[in-house]
Amino acid sequence: MRTGKTTKKALTFSRRGMGLEEEINVANDFYLANRLAVIHKKPTPITIVNVDYPARSAAKITEAYFKQASTTDYNGVYQGHYIDFDAKETKNKTSFPLKNFHQHQIDHLANVLSQGGLGFVIIKFTSLNENYVYPASHLIYEWQLHKGKQSISYETIVTHSYRIPESLTPSLDYLVALDEWLAHINK
Amino acid sequence: MRTGKTTKKALTFSRRGMGLEEEINVANDFYLANRLAVIHKKPTPITIVNVDYPARSAAKITEAYFKQASTTDYNGVYQGHYIDFDAKETKNKTSFPLKNFHQHQIDHLANVLSQGGLGFVIIKFTSLNENYVYPASHLIYEWQLHKGKQSISYETIVTHSYRIPESLTPSLDYLVALDEWLAHINK
Ligand SMILES: [Mg+2]
Ligand SMILES: [Mg+2]
Repeated sequence: MRTGKTTKKALTFSRRGMGLEEEINVANDFYLANRLAVIHKKPTPITIVNVDYPARSAAKITEAYFKQASTTDYNGVYQGHYIDFDAKETKNKTSFPLKNFHQHQIDHLANVLSQGGLGFVIIKFTSLNENYVYPASHLIYEWQLHKGKQSISYETIVTHSYRIPESLTPSLDYLVALDEWLAHINK
Repeated sequence: MRTGKTTKKALTFSRRGMGLEEEINVANDFYLANRLAVIHKKPTPITIVNVDYPARSAAKITEAYFKQASTTDYNGVYQGHYIDFDAKETKNKTSFPLKNFHQHQIDHLANVLSQGGLGFVIIKFTSLNENYVYPASHLIYEWQLHKGKQSISYETIVTHSYRIPESLTPSLDYLVALDEWLAHINK
């Protein structure tokens, strides 16, 4: 998608070129390989309508449709804690639009909290190149306050979040922010 | 798939007609609705090769293939515990064949244990109509002992498992067996 003009910049700031989900997947692979956490992206849910079973070759799905996900993007376990989160990015600099969320995601995160899990959202402000772990309890509060419309201000998010510091390996080392959060909970 | 002859029996023993995964899904729906646990089946992972985007209708996947799952069937959170398990059934009455497992499932369960999660298998002996929560630590031990071949004897499984009692709603109330296990851990 990049034009020739941006190629050099793309290489220099290659991490900026990665989408948020890609950065999270790379972090998860790093965490798994280094035995730091076991967190996976959930497969995309689809409804399969038709499958061909050709002789001597793999079953081929020939008709299927994307299904609305009923939960979040990622879950897993970190030092005994159940981890559950969604990844969201925005180009906005001053606020995060609530239309990025769906009621079922809010409901799922509320269910996770009620069972003692760590529910949150990783929010990337792409224009600012800032990443935050925003706890689900605050998201749910804002969602109810605004009835799912409008947006959450940048200041509100920053106040209640744990910032993911700039890092090299992995580029989005979100366990650092989780550690800060857990230290705060256990204080 | 049932012939006319078995229809009446199928109705009478309808729970026996349900596959193990179906019973687990019903239990999970019950747990979610009653705020007892948040446990979901992971979607089947597929590799999407081609998608059509017809005007005015839903995107249609026209070519995709099933992908080997890299983890287990189910995960979630129960009273602060990370839960991760696979569902397996056998018609055998005296042993459980280890060929039902794959190395990646064993590795995943070992990773889960190393992060303090509760990893296990729900094993159904269909001919005996007995269901067990079999802790992953024992499964991993047997797997290494037998190098993934042969089988685990029925007695070994029964000795190290927590039996899922017969129940009506849900028919496979596996949280009862988990409670027994957790009480044993906390003793
Ligand atoms: Mg997302
Ligand atoms: Mg299975």
